[in-house]
Order: sequence, then structure tokens, then C-alpha cells
Amino acid sequence: MGCVQSFREICDRQKNTNVRLSLPAVCFVWQTAMIILFGVFIRYNEESDTHWVEHRKANNISSDIENDFYFRYPSFQDVHVMIFVGFGFLMTFLKRYSFGAVGFNFLIAAFGLQWALLMQGWFHSLDYTDGKIKIGVENLINADFCVAGCLIAYGAVLGKVSPVQLMVMTLFGVTLFAVEEYIILNLIHARDAGGSMVIHTFGGYYGLSISWMLYRPNLDQSSRLQGSCYHSDVFAMIGTLFLWMFWPSFNSAITDHGDGQHRAAINTYLALASTVLTTVAISSLFQKHGKLDMVHIQNSTLAGGVAVGTAAEFMLMPYGSLIVGFCCGIISTLGYIYLTPFMEKHLKIQDTCGIHNLHAMPGVIGGIVGAITAAAATESVYGREGLVNTFDFEGAFKDMVPTRQGGHQAAGLCVAICFGIGGGILVGCILRLPIWGDAADDNCFDDESYWELPEDEEIHLTTVFLVMHMCYSHTKQAMQA
Amino acid sequence: MGCVQSFREICDRQKNTNVRLSLPAVCFVWQTAMIILFGVFIRYNEESDTHWVEHRKANNISSDIENDFYFRYPSFQDVHVMIFVGFGFLMTFLKRYSFGAVGFNFLIAAFGLQWALLMQGWFHSLDYTDGKIKIGVENLINADFCVAGCLIAYGAVLGKVSPVQLMVMTLFGVTLFAVEEYIILNLIHARDAGGSMVIHTFGGYYGLSISWMLYRPNLDQSSRLQGSCYHSDVFAMIGTLFLWMFWPSFNSAITDHGDGQHRAAINTYLALASTVLTTVAISSLFQKHGKLDMVHIQNSTLAGGVAVGTAAEFMLMPYGSLIVGFCCGIISTLGYIYLTPFMEKHLKIQDTCGIHNLHAMPGVIGGIVGAITAAAATESVYGREGLVNTFDFEGAFKDMVPTRQGGHQAAGLCVAICFGIGGGILVGCILRLPIWGDAADDNCFDDESYWELPEDEEIHLTTVFLVMHMCYSHTKQAMQA
Amino acid sequence: MGCVQSFREICDRQKNTNVRLSLPAVCFVWQTAMIILFGVFIRYNEESDTHWVEHRKANNISSDIENDFYFRYPSFQDVHVMIFVGFGFLMTFLKRYSFGAVGFNFLIAAFGLQWALLMQGWFHSLDYTDGKIKIGVENLINADFCVAGCLIAYGAVLGKVSPVQLMVMTLFGVTLFAVEEYIILNLIHARDAGGSMVIHTFGGYYGLSISWMLYRPNLDQSSRLQGSCYHSDVFAMIGTLFLWMFWPSFNSAITDHGDGQHRAAINTYLALASTVLTTVAISSLFQKHGKLDMVHIQNSTLAGGVAVGTAAEFMLMPYGSLIVGFCCGIISTLGYIYLTPFMEKHLKIQDTCGIHNLHAMPGVIGGIVGAITAAAATESVYGREGLVNTFDFEGAFKDMVPTRQGGHQAAGLCVAICFGIGGGILVGCILRLPIWGDAADDNCFDDESYWELPEDEEIHLTTVFLVMHMCYSHTKQAMQA
Repeated sequence: MGCVQSFREICDRQKNTNVRLSLPAVCFVWQTAMIILFGVFIRYNEESDTHWVEHRKANNISSDIENDFYFRYPSFQDVHVMIFVGFGFLMTFLKRYSFGAVGFNFLIAAFGLQWALLMQGWFHSLDYTDGKIKIGVENLINADFCVAGCLIAYGAVLGKVSPVQLMVMTLFGVTLFAVEEYIILNLIHARDAGGSMVIHTFGGYYGLSISWMLYRPNLDQSSRLQGSCYHSDVFAMIGTLFLWMFWPSFNSAITDHGDGQHRAAINTYLALASTVLTTVAISSLFQKHGKLDMVHIQNSTLAGGVAVGTAAEFMLMPYGSLIVGFCCGIISTLGYIYLTPFMEKHLKIQDTCGIHNLHAMPGVIGGIVGAITAAAATESVYGREGLVNTFDFEGAFKDMVPTRQGGHQAAGLCVAICFGIGGGILVGCILRLPIWGDAADDNCFDDESYWELPEDEEIHLTTVFLVMHMCYSHTKQAMQA
Repeated sequence: MGCVQSFREICDRQKNTNVRLSLPAVCFVWQTAMIILFGVFIRYNEESDTHWVEHRKANNISSDIENDFYFRYPSFQDVHVMIFVGFGFLMTFLKRYSFGAVGFNFLIAAFGLQWALLMQGWFHSLDYTDGKIKIGVENLINADFCVAGCLIAYGAVLGKVSPVQLMVMTLFGVTLFAVEEYIILNLIHARDAGGSMVIHTFGGYYGLSISWMLYRPNLDQSSRLQGSCYHSDVFAMIGTLFLWMFWPSFNSAITDHGDGQHRAAINTYLALASTVLTTVAISSLFQKHGKLDMVHIQNSTLAGGVAVGTAAEFMLMPYGSLIVGFCCGIISTLGYIYLTPFMEKHLKIQDTCGIHNLHAMPGVIGGIVGAITAAAATESVYGREGLVNTFDFEGAFKDMVPTRQGGHQAAGLCVAICFGIGGGILVGCILRLPIWGDAADDNCFDDESYWELPEDEEIHLTTVFLVMHMCYSHTKQAMQA
Repeated sequence: MGCVQSFREICDRQKNTNVRLSLPAVCFVWQTAMIILFGVFIRYNEESDTHWVEHRKANNISSDIENDFYFRYPSFQDVHVMIFVGFGFLMTFLKRYSFGAVGFNFLIAAFGLQWALLMQGWFHSLDYTDGKIKIGVENLINADFCVAGCLIAYGAVLGKVSPVQLMVMTLFGVTLFAVEEYIILNLIHARDAGGSMVIHTFGGYYGLSISWMLYRPNLDQSSRLQGSCYHSDVFAMIGTLFLWMFWPSFNSAITDHGDGQHRAAINTYLALASTVLTTVAISSLFQKHGKLDMVHIQNSTLAGGVAVGTAAEFMLMPYGSLIVGFCCGIISTLGYIYLTPFMEKHLKIQDTCGIHNLHAMPGVIGGIVGAITAAAATESVYGREGLVNTFDFEGAFKDMVPTRQGGHQAAGLCVAICFGIGGGILVGCILRLPIWGDAADDNCFDDESYWELPEDEEIHLTTVFLVMHMCYSHTKQAMQA
């Protein structure tokens, strides 16, 4: 049938997205560099080394169960699921970019965590006696955290960049993250267990700045693909739910043993529950006929977990967590309804996943909540020992008081924002170079550019009408002849 | 093309399902009430409070690892996955109600767990010295358990109720659950670690009674949508598998530290394995050509976990667990084949997910197995101390003997059934009021009513034939003209 | 419309796959046998028995937290997810065999783990004082491991065998596994924490040999179904990611308490990260236009976890893990590109999932890496006590030295290969008997044979063209008349 052939021809479009040399080159060079650097710098720490038994006896530790592995490994695995399944599937909502969402997320996370182990190791886990970085399960968690910042940024540019660009973005993102984290946590001595500032604020503004630098004025040419289909929305809910369920583990993964982990998990659990209710309320209230919008349910329900990140280990109190979640559900959903279109139209920031509403804003709120909660801490609520433990008023900071700690928290937030915006603009400049193999405006949001796609036999309504129109014309011509 | 327009018109149907005011109102009012009540009543317990370090030293606890968090948090996270991914995805099997399944499940679970923390707290965790409820990880698990009862009930009315109705149903469900649980566990002193009676029997009959009260005689008008499609069945398997895999954590989450949790996990693991075999056997045996039915695989394979809930912490013995699973796989699958159609036709109970076969019946079996196992307990098998620990023969019940305990277990089962049926009829009356925005009979099982759906371009066979028929007619008319 | 009927007739094909008697018979007989054998042999061990409290006091164990349950249960649950969701969903990539992939995986895993508890119990956990097998959480993990070997083998024959054949294959597979494991671990005293040899090498060659025995020369007749569709590839990524994320738990689940588990998790985490990078590199390099192939991303990214299985608990060093992952990503991806087509064409081995590239080859590499690492172990790196603990140089093997241990490791690898190939040929002979109800060559890879499928209204391009062609002809005839 002639009509089939002509239809096939319409589908063939020109591509300029060949990454056959650049992608393998980056992967091989980078992975080789990692092996060398790991060989030079990275060793097991005393809890993962075979000398543990001797160490245990020397330090009078009564049982193997006190190895940090048993305190943190279950939380680590939950965080790991959030990074790979949570972030990956959350972004599968686009109808024809699911491979890119889950596949590139996989690639840059696996890539970034190695670099994160090194960068964070130099700042935090360097053993000055032998110049080696000593790693254990807590380092793995921190590497996953560091990668999370870059995956957040990926959300802003989803569908518009090549895998090579993503790797460059991750390389610089991890580097900036490690420096920013060191300044905020060690120099400024802010506390940020769940990373509202360090991870979400930084990652959010980093991604938004990059997206601003990579503004595509004719992106509406691929608007046909910039939406979801029924099943892609269900896939995205897998991501949403695993993020939502395991967020208590995220916020408690590196807090103090004992009550610190326990309290952080409870606060996060409550904040998230509260967010779901207000997200549903706003979503229904602002749509015609009161129908719910999947975009809100997939994203805004998570804002409470972001916003409680900093304060989760403090005595935020259960009702305090609920209040934080309550506000964030409202703000985040309104952001999707009003702010994202505004930013695209007037600020030239195209934010595919709406990370401004899910990470950047709630992250800033989280930083502010953390500052207030820290400033309001009293010995009567925390107990003397509790106050010292919770805020780590020890060593060089043993004269700190809660009010001053509040100021330090606020300073930390500013640093995170500056690093995010500044770093994003810088990296955005680099990514504008015409060597990275990104797709043309009308090929965005399409897996076709970077993936061998199965010859999908499912057809779509437009196709049928097109084909039928052709046949109809053929018939008409035949009739007239 | 004119044929397209006329086809579109056929698709537009009248709706009476606007929840734009009621849904946000309920969410906001309720969440505000929660914040106030949490502010008045809920505090951290001694293991999640900053005073833990002092508490630890005062009580001679040698290590942070003995904080209850480390005994129960991994199980809590497994239970959490069952509640949100397990129950949510299990119900996605309907071809056009996946958003409602996973989304409303999410909403009512997040809503219910807050109320559960309060209700259960007043009964179980109230500190009489200061009138506050002190919460820790065990309370989170119990709140999830409590919500499970309501999600089970949702299975019976899936696709036929509005989100507002679901929230009312959950509000009353949680309240009834907490009272029933207090009577069964504390007053009657029955043991029910995995909630065969307290959760499954109650939840099952609660949902069935509501479904009976909300009987829709013309439901067959939406039978077009009351089935699965290929991919929705695969999505449902995600729910099935996460429920199946984590059920050992569910049944062991709140059992005694040490051997209690260990044994409950083993028993559940074995019962579930056995159920899979008999489910497959019956499913194949009762279908023509011996083909397997996905409905059975998705649901009946879980019945063993339900039925071993009460007795999982007892010395049921590995072979005992296998026997329980063996029987439940048979009974549950036969239930889907014979009982569900019978109940719909003759008892006017429309049970969308077949919760009678998955929860109610196996729950009752579980209660009976628990009673028998408890009555048969002997000191020679359990050891003196083991008997006391397992059945909690302490305090007011230190003179209990196993045979009498068996009687108490049976009494507990009766209470669960009564609360389920009685509560369900009561709540069903309330839900029949014409103010809740539920859909008409021919709009059931359709996400269209409550969700903004993506303009899905996938088309279906009937559509194509309809459109082709129109074009054919047009051509014919044109020819005749 | 007449054209519809004639089209439906084309779709009806003859089937010879009725398993209505054989499948239920096998399930019932087998499950009954299990109950009897469990009744005779299996009891709780001292950590899951109610006598635990007395045991604890007698052995001066200070806390319930030292029950093995708390050391291993979180890892067990991760392994459990890998077995049921990981393996199950990894195989859903075929467009019309998702039910079979996830459903039969479920069936044979639940079936096999019971037999594994018995077989492994007789060899490893038999209490000679009373002739009973005493089980605890470690036995559950080992049973899951044992089943993994058979699920690997399923990957080679996916879509080409009946469920009855699968059960026979699993029955023999578990039996062979237990014997092979006993020889390798106990008699030869090789170490194999993550089962590179015992699980992956054995399972891989077992499956390949069976597939060779069941060679289907006319399999290309069902090539229409031997591919993926867009959403089935996304489903498969669920399997990939859960395997990838939880592999550190797999390799550390049964290693020594303390540093053993800690180190195994770190090594596996690193090896897997490295594999992702080289898999992407090779996949892009060897495809035209540098596009990535989902088959590689789904499978080869996991090869590093397989290959580090044996050596994960040794002092492989972080950079050593990266190197292993680096090589395996390359080899495994090249295997998919060159070796799988070669094996199908010239060796008559049809390997549906490419298990040779994902399990067999990386398993062998893992065995070799283990042998080298063991042979290179020194007291200066491990410490005296560490060396003894890690390699278990105790009891009858207290005079072993690392170099000799390396030889034993290599011997273990040979045993695994022999058992795999020998056992596979034997079982393949049995499976060739014409009594098992397997499908004809042109009905392979089709769920239709063993599952009641939903009447899926989604249509496919070929269908539309077929129907349109008929209508076109009708119109033409009508015109001519």
C-alpha cells in the first residue's frame, strides 16, 4: 500500500545527536581515572577492614552488632532505592522519554557516586596519618546524598540535554556540592541532616540556573511529546511512592545513633503525611470540576520531606512537623499551577519536572525552619546533654548557644543558594558549547535521539486519522477516475 | 473530518462528580484539626527524645543499638511499602482506574495514619503523668496497621465511591479499629501479632458491609471498564509481590524482640510459599484449557500471610505454617471462582477486588488457627519462660493457662467480625447520603470522574471500528450521490 | 462487519499446551510431600525458638539485639526482593510474555525455596542429636540463594517451556545445587559469599545446557513476539534496578558479622557502579549512531555484582572492585553483541535473556578473581586474626595457607561448571519427553498458551492495515458492482 510508505517517510527526521565517540570516551577516560584515584586514595575504614576484630577488642566493644554497618545499612538501602528507583521513575512521566529518564538517571548516579566518594572523602574522611580516605557505610550514604543534588538538577533539564552534557553537569555538580557541603557543615557549623539546604536548595538552583542558560525559545515545537500518557503516569507513581515511603530513612540516615535517627524518622513521616492532604486539597480546588492533577500528586506530596530535612533531628515536635508539611503542600502545588508557567514565560526558565516547586522552594523553607528551630532550642526541652549532642556543641564550637546556631543555619542557607546559582551559571556556559550532541528543539523529549527503540506496533490516534485520510483520498481519486 | 467530531461527542458524558468544594474542605479542616490535636497530645517517647542519652545511662543500657528503633525500623519500612506500594498497586489492575487505585490509596493512608496515631495513642500510649501520648517507631507501625484495615475495605468499593466518601470511611474505620483493637488485645487479652482478626477480619467485613449498603443494581453499565488490560495486570503484580515479600515483616513487626520476631518471620515466609503452589493448582484446575487466571495469582497467593497472622509468633512449627498456607490457597482461589459471583448475584455484595477471599475468609481462618494453636500450647514445647513471654501471661493475666487463652482468642475473633459488620452497616448508611459526589452507575471504574487525564492517543479496537464504519458510510453516501 | 470475523479467525490457532491435569497434580503432590517432610525434619533453631530467652541467659548474651535475626533480616528482605521482583521483572521485557515472566518466576521460586530448605538443611543444618534440621533467618537466605540458581536458568529458556517443565527443572536444579554447594564450600573449603561460582556459574551453565538440549530449529516462526515494546522495557528496568541496588545485600547477606558484611557491601557497591559506565560506553560504541541498547542497560550493568561475588568479603580493595566492574561491563556487553548471536547460530544454544553474558561468564570471572585474591592474601594486609576469620582457617583447615586456598577456589569453580553442564544435559534429556505440555515453535514467547489474557482492546499497526485493506477491497467491489 503506497499510503504506508509515504507515512513512513514523514516519520524520518534528521538527527544531530550522534554521541558514538563522545559518550564512550567520557565513560572510559573517567572510569579509568577513578580506578587510579581510588588506588591511590581509598581504603576501608576500621569498621570494614579485617582488623575490625582486633579494633573491637582494643576498644572494649562488646559485640559485632555495634559496627556502624548495623546502625546505618538499612537506611542506606532505602536511600539507594530513592536515588535509583525514586528519582529514576519519578521522571518517567513523559510519554516518550522513559528510557532517558530511568536510564540516564542510572548512568549519572553510578558515575557521580564514585567522584563523590573521593571529593567528600578528601574533605571529611581523610586520615592524615597515611593520607588515605577511609570509607565505610556512612560514606556510601553521603555519596548517594551528593548524587541526589545532581539528579534534582537533571529534573530541570530532562529531555533537553544529551547524556554527555549530563555527565559534565554531574562532574561539576558533585565538585561544587562537596565544597559547599564542607563550608556549610564544617566551617559554618550548620546542621543539615536531611540536606534541605545542602542537597535540595543547592540542587534545585543549580538545575534551574543551568536550564536558564540553556533556554530553548522554540521548545514548543516538541510540545507534542512534552506530556504524559496514562501508563507513564502510573510508572511515575512508582518513583513518587518509593521517595515518599523512604524519605524518613533519607532524613535519618546520617543523624546521631539512637534518639537522633529515631526522631528524624518520626518527624519526616509526619510532615509527609500532612503534605499529602494539602496537596490534594489545592490540586482539587484550583482545577475546573475539582479534578486532581497527577503532576501535583506525583511531586508536591514530597515537598514536606524536603522541608523537614534540616530540622528533622531537632525537637521540632510532632505538631511542628505537621505544620511544615501543611504549608509545603500548599506552596508547592500553587507553584506548579502559577509559578512554573510564569517562570517559563517571563524568566526564560524551562523547568521540565518543576524542581523549583519540589526542591528549591521547599529546601529554602527547610533551611528557614531549621534556623528558627535551632534558635528556639532550650535546655529545658533538650536537656543539657541532649542539646550538646543534637547541635554538636563540642570541640571548637563548645561555646555555641542556640540563638547563634540559628544565625549559622541561616548563613548556611545563603551559601547553598549562592553555590547553586553561581555554579549553575558557570556550568551552563560550558554546556552551551556546540560539542555535546544535544537534540534540536523539535526532537526534545524523545528517546529516539539516544536509544534504540523497539519497533512499537502500538499506534496512536493521529496516525490512524492520517492513514485513513490518505486511503480516503485514494478511494475518492479512484472513484473520480 | 466530520466523522471525528461526531465521535468525540459520543464520548462526552454528563458528570455529577464535582468534589471541588467538599474534598478541599475535608482535607483542610481535618488536617488543621490534626495539627491542634497533635499539639495538645503528642510528644516523643523516651527513645526518640533528646533525653535518651540520660535515660540510657540511668537504665544501664549499654549501647544505642538497643534503642527500639534498631529492632523495628527495618520492619516498619517494609510495612510502609506494603501500605503504599503494596495495597496501592494491587488495585491498579482495572484498566482505567489506576490513578484512583494508587492515588486515593495514597490519600487515605496519609490521612488515616495521623488519626490512628491519636486514637491508638489514647488507648495504648497515654502517659498518665502528663496526659500526653508518647510515640516511637512502634506507634508508626501500629498506625500503618490500622490504616491497612481501611485500605482492605477500600478494595471492596474500588471504583464506586468518591474520594470524600473514602475519607469518611477511613475516619470511621480508624476509630472503630482502635476501639476494637483495644477490646481484643487489652480487655480480652487475645494475641494477634499479624492482625488476622484485628486487621483482616475487621477490615474485610467492614468493607463488605459498606459495599452491601452501597449496592448498585445497574453496575453492569460500566462493565466495559470493570476488567484489566495487559499492562494494568503487570502493574498489579508489583503490588502483589511487594505484599508477598514483605509479609514476614508485617507479621513480625511488633512481636517480641528476639525469638518472637525471628519465628514470626519464618512462619509467614513458609505459609506464603505454600499458598502460591495451591493457588496455581486450583486456578489451573478450574479454568478451561488449564490456563492460569491473573486475578488468582495477584490475590490468592497472599491468603497464607493473612491466615498465619495470629499464630505466626506461636510455636506453629514450620509444617504447621505450610498446612495453613496450603488450605488458604485452595479456599481463597475457590472463593474467587464461586463465591464472589454468588455474593454479587444473590447477596447483593459487589466486591471489586474480592477482599472476601483475600482478607475476610483467611482472616477468620487465621483467628481459628490462632485459637487452636494457643489452646494446644504446652510448657514442654514452649518452656516455662517461653510460654509466659509468648502469651504475655503477666500482670492481671498471670494465672491464664493456654486452653483458656484459646477461648479468649476465639472471643477476640467474634468481636472483630461484629465490629466489622456492625460498623460497616453504620458507615454505609452515612455514605448513602446524596452529598458525597460519587459517580453514576455507568461512570464507575473510570478515572475520568476525579482526575485530569492525559489526552491519551492510544486507541482501542472499538474506536477504530466505529470510526471506520462512519467513513465507510460517508464513502457510500458520496458514491450514491 | 464481515471483515472483523474473518480477521478473528486468523487469530485462532491450535494449541497443545493444556496443563490442566499435570500442573495441579505436580503442585498438590509436591506441596503435600513438603508438608510431610517438614513435619518429620524441620524445627526452629535456638534463635527462633521460644527457648531463646533461656539460651541467651545461659550463654551470657547481653541483649536480644544479638539474635542473628537483627544481623541478617534486612539483608534477607533485600535478597527476597531480588528473587521475586528483581528476577521476575527483569524478564518482563518480552512484549507478550510478562505474565509468564513474573508469574512463573513467582511459582518456581516459592516451590524451590521449600525444597532448598530441606536439601541445604540436610547438608548444613542437621542437628545430629535429634536428626532435625534447625532453621533460622540464615537458612531462609540460603534457600533464596539456591532458588536464584534456578531462576538464572529460567532466563535461558524463557518463553519456550511449560510451567510443568519449569518445576521439574527447579526440582532437579535445587537438588544439584545443594550437592554442588556442599562439595565446594564444605569438602573443598572454597569461600563463595556472593555465589559467583555456586550460584551464577552453576545456574548459568545449567540453563544453557538445558536450552541446548531443547534446541528449537524453527524458533524464528515466533520472532514476531521475541522482542520488547516500549512499556515492557520500562517494566524490565524495575527488575534491573532492584537487582542492582540490592546486590550489595546479596553479596553480604551471609558473610561474617561485623567487618565481613560491611566490606562485602562496599565492594559490591563499587563494582556495580563501575560496570554501569563501561556498559554504556560499549553499548554506544558498537551501535550505529551511538544509540544505547536497552538490552545492555538492563543486563550488563549487573555483571559487576556477579563477578565480585566470591571476592566481596576479601580485602579486594575499593580500586580492585572498580577494576572487576570495569572489565565485566565490557565483556558482558560484547557478549550480547557478538556471542549470543554466535551461540544461537553455530552452537544451537538459544539464550532468551542472555544469561551467558550476565551470569555464566561473569560468574567464571568472579571465581577466578576470588582465587587470585585469596592466593594473594597476606597477614600484613589482613592481620593474623583477620586472615583466619576471613578464610575460616579453623578446625580441619587450620593449617591452610592463602596460596593453597587459591587453588581450592579454582577447584571449586571447576566443580560448579561441571555440575552446571552435566546437570543441565541430564535434566534437558528429561525435559525432552513429549509429556510436559510445552508450546509449538510458533507459539513461543506468547502468554496466550498458559494464561487467561484480558481482551486487550489496544490494537497494533499490522491489524489496522489488515482491516483497512479488507475494507478497501469491500469498497472497491461495491464500487465495481
